[in-house]
Amino acid sequence: MKLKLTLLAFFLFNAILLHAQDSLYIRKIYDEALVNGQCYSNLHYLCKNIGERLSGSANAQKAVDWSKKLMESYGFDKVFLQEVMVPHWVRGQKEVALILDGNKKIPVPICALGMSIATPKEGITANIIEVHSLRELDTLGAAAIKGKIVFFNRPFDPRFIETGAAYGTAGDQRFLGPAAAAKYGAAGAIVRSLTEIIDDYPHTGATLSSGKNIIPAAAISTKAADELSALLKSHKKAIKFYFKQSCQLLPDEKSFNVLAELTGTEQPNKFITVGGHLDSWDLAEGANDDGTGVVQSLEVLRILKVLGYHPKNSIRAVFFMNEENGDKGGEKYAELAAKNKEDHIAAIETDEGGFTPRGFGFTGLKKGVLQNINLNWKPLLEPYEADRLIAGGGGSDIGPLVTASPSVVIIGYLPDSQRYFDLHHSAKDVFENVDKRELELGSAAMAALIYLIDQHGFQ
Amino acid sequence: MKLKLTLLAFFLFNAILLHAQDSLYIRKIYDEALVNGQCYSNLHYLCKNIGERLSGSANAQKAVDWSKKLMESYGFDKVFLQEVMVPHWVRGQKEVALILDGNKKIPVPICALGMSIATPKEGITANIIEVHSLRELDTLGAAAIKGKIVFFNRPFDPRFIETGAAYGTAGDQRFLGPAAAAKYGAAGAIVRSLTEIIDDYPHTGATLSSGKNIIPAAAISTKAADELSALLKSHKKAIKFYFKQSCQLLPDEKSFNVLAELTGTEQPNKFITVGGHLDSWDLAEGANDDGTGVVQSLEVLRILKVLGYHPKNSIRAVFFMNEENGDKGGEKYAELAAKNKEDHIAAIETDEGGFTPRGFGFTGLKKGVLQNINLNWKPLLEPYEADRLIAGGGGSDIGPLVTASPSVVIIGYLPDSQRYFDLHHSAKDVFENVDKRELELGSAAMAALIYLIDQHGFQ
Repeated sequence: MKLKLTLLAFFLFNAILLHAQDSLYIRKIYDEALVNGQCYSNLHYLCKNIGERLSGSANAQKAVDWSKKLMESYGFDKVFLQEVMVPHWVRGQKEVALILDGNKKIPVPICALGMSIATPKEGITANIIEVHSLRELDTLGAAAIKGKIVFFNRPFDPRFIETGAAYGTAGDQRFLGPAAAAKYGAAGAIVRSLTEIIDDYPHTGATLSSGKNIIPAAAISTKAADELSALLKSHKKAIKFYFKQSCQLLPDEKSFNVLAELTGTEQPNKFITVGGHLDSWDLAEGANDDGTGVVQSLEVLRILKVLGYHPKNSIRAVFFMNEENGDKGGEKYAELAAKNKEDHIAAIETDEGGFTPRGFGFTGLKKGVLQNINLNWKPLLEPYEADRLIAGGGGSDIGPLVTASPSVVIIGYLPDSQRYFDLHHSAKDVFENVDKRELELGSAAMAALIYLIDQHGFQ
Repeated sequence: MKLKLTLLAFFLFNAILLHAQDSLYIRKIYDEALVNGQCYSNLHYLCKNIGERLSGSANAQKAVDWSKKLMESYGFDKVFLQEVMVPHWVRGQKEVALILDGNKKIPVPICALGMSIATPKEGITANIIEVHSLRELDTLGAAAIKGKIVFFNRPFDPRFIETGAAYGTAGDQRFLGPAAAAKYGAAGAIVRSLTEIIDDYPHTGATLSSGKNIIPAAAISTKAADELSALLKSHKKAIKFYFKQSCQLLPDEKSFNVLAELTGTEQPNKFITVGGHLDSWDLAEGANDDGTGVVQSLEVLRILKVLGYHPKNSIRAVFFMNEENGDKGGEKYAELAAKNKEDHIAAIETDEGGFTPRGFGFTGLKKGVLQNINLNWKPLLEPYEADRLIAGGGGSDIGPLVTASPSVVIIGYLPDSQRYFDLHHSAKDVFENVDKRELELGSAAMAALIYLIDQHGFQ
């Protein structure tokens, strides 16, 4: 009995000591991030000196070159590229759209959806029919749809607390809607922008455009969508709609994921990754989507390097290419991980904006581990208010890793979600809408989590 | 034993039922706030149709009139004013400042600190001495200070996670610095703006200016402060500084707190209040400081009214006057509470911006109550991510209530703090820097807390 108590005291003492060590190290991580942070100035360069960088574009290549050079300047153990073929879609000339209300022509802001085809050169003029779901589209069928422009207008549900959930439930209209309308012979599709905010900015994003029946598809600003809907409701005779766009899909281009690594001192073939995507939509600077994610990922590695941290496992920052319209970079990373027999412990994705950290969502933890994490790690992250550690989460770039490395824990970084979809995929996604401290705190939170995973694993 | 178990089961069942009821009601509160919210459009009116509203100004009176009318339109049980005399300070003409570096004259952005006196008409030109603390000032003494302009330049400490803590530790330079410098015969004082962000905007705010030795005092933008400091370091011969301002303190003016009330059905003389301040600094629209606070407070009452909630205790929304340069409204509210023998259960202040809610800070809870709140209420607020319930907190408008109503629990609403001091007291504090959903979520969080206090009290 006495021995048992002594042993218990010993373990307890060790646990307290370990907790104190972790606590001190995490404080160091935050101090480095907040006092000497470089992610904000790196983001400034990416946004203002390179700017939009859609896959396959010259700017995307500039971003690759800059990223590699920047990584090399930090003196990590490895910096390298992973070649990957990506789609090359171009928007062409600025889109034009009009609501045709008798003799009145009301110009409205639209933008082609990513991967959509062009209209004929002269544009499309057709009757317009408003629908609110794919099911409604099916109910209406070809009789009501054929030859018309289908106007998908189900708004964000504001009752969700996390805006990602509202995006998730409204998103089928953009991704699947146009292709579904094409099946019934629609002439084109106009989709309400996937945002709750009511303004004049259309938000682009990928739409499904493979298969044989594809039609031109564009996003319309929420304000114009409300106006169009009100007109449709108030008129007995049909309103017509006109739009013109000249986007096209060019042949695939060669591009790259860009990676930096601190090589593990004990288990170099076990990996913990943190990544965002380097490509962006073409309407703005891709600041929050996902410039913040890549500069934060790099900052995680920079902080650990500067603190002289020698990780047990290899830690990588991954700048994925082509998240927005193909996910080819994420697939390539997983493919190479399988080929090279890399064993991934964990992969964190930061692709929900550079806002104040709230916590992390975990997928793939063994039974009981989430409870342990909440018991042991939550108190360490609580002083930094990044302690919301919940089940579920990940990201499209790291998703494919599950097949390559089945025991990997997939982790979504969870910043505050309220402002993301105000900006997401629109012309407002610029550097000015990123806050320096919010960005830095995110880097620190991810560095702290990676430190804990590297030190203790998932137990 | 059997009876005891039955009783236990009964209480347990009741507790679960109560929790479920509370949970449902809080969901209703959030739905109303997010689906039919009016605080954002009210804030738009206050910012764009009234704008800056420093105590004693014509605009402050406009804001009082508008607030009362708006409250009356909602059909609350009572709407009324509390008369209060307030200081009337005016900025006068736009300030001018120059760094005099030999023959070079470098213009820098400054603004007079609130309550400061003017310079002589021709301005002040003097040698400038940089200090970093009041203690350093005392060490230097009159020999080094006399006749000079004292430049207080201790920056925000970025290592604090809550920016309010950084403000707290840097703030003595602005509030006490100029008066302390005056004691040693300084000709004037220039204070680094109380913000971490490096930009061209000076941030005003009150400075102590009673007593006999008072000197003109102004805030300088952080960018200019860094420039001035670098010049001072790089030069052997002294840099001079010139500034001119024409602000003055006019006779006190009559003004008002504006109040709305839902009268308690069981204990009408027990009160739960929620409030912000209606006055603002004069450099912008007072959007986050504290337009958001007043529209949120009103929204709390609107939500409860619309849901048909009949409170046990009286619930008040209080728009305090003169928080920025006198606290006369807060003092008046407490004075009248004492005079009218009103028993205040709790007072919430929202004056830290309209950002995403994180939780609440409590002062004055009896022993063990904070633990109980965390046990019983935290799970109800957790789905809304407003569940950080901590000790400490309040606000300058509700502080005086402690003497009037000694058992009152003083509660500070805690939104995310990262962006507040980027904007605070500067020309950037405009409507455009408020996010609709963040604002609405704050109203809902406060309505939920008030509902819980009204239903259960502090146990």
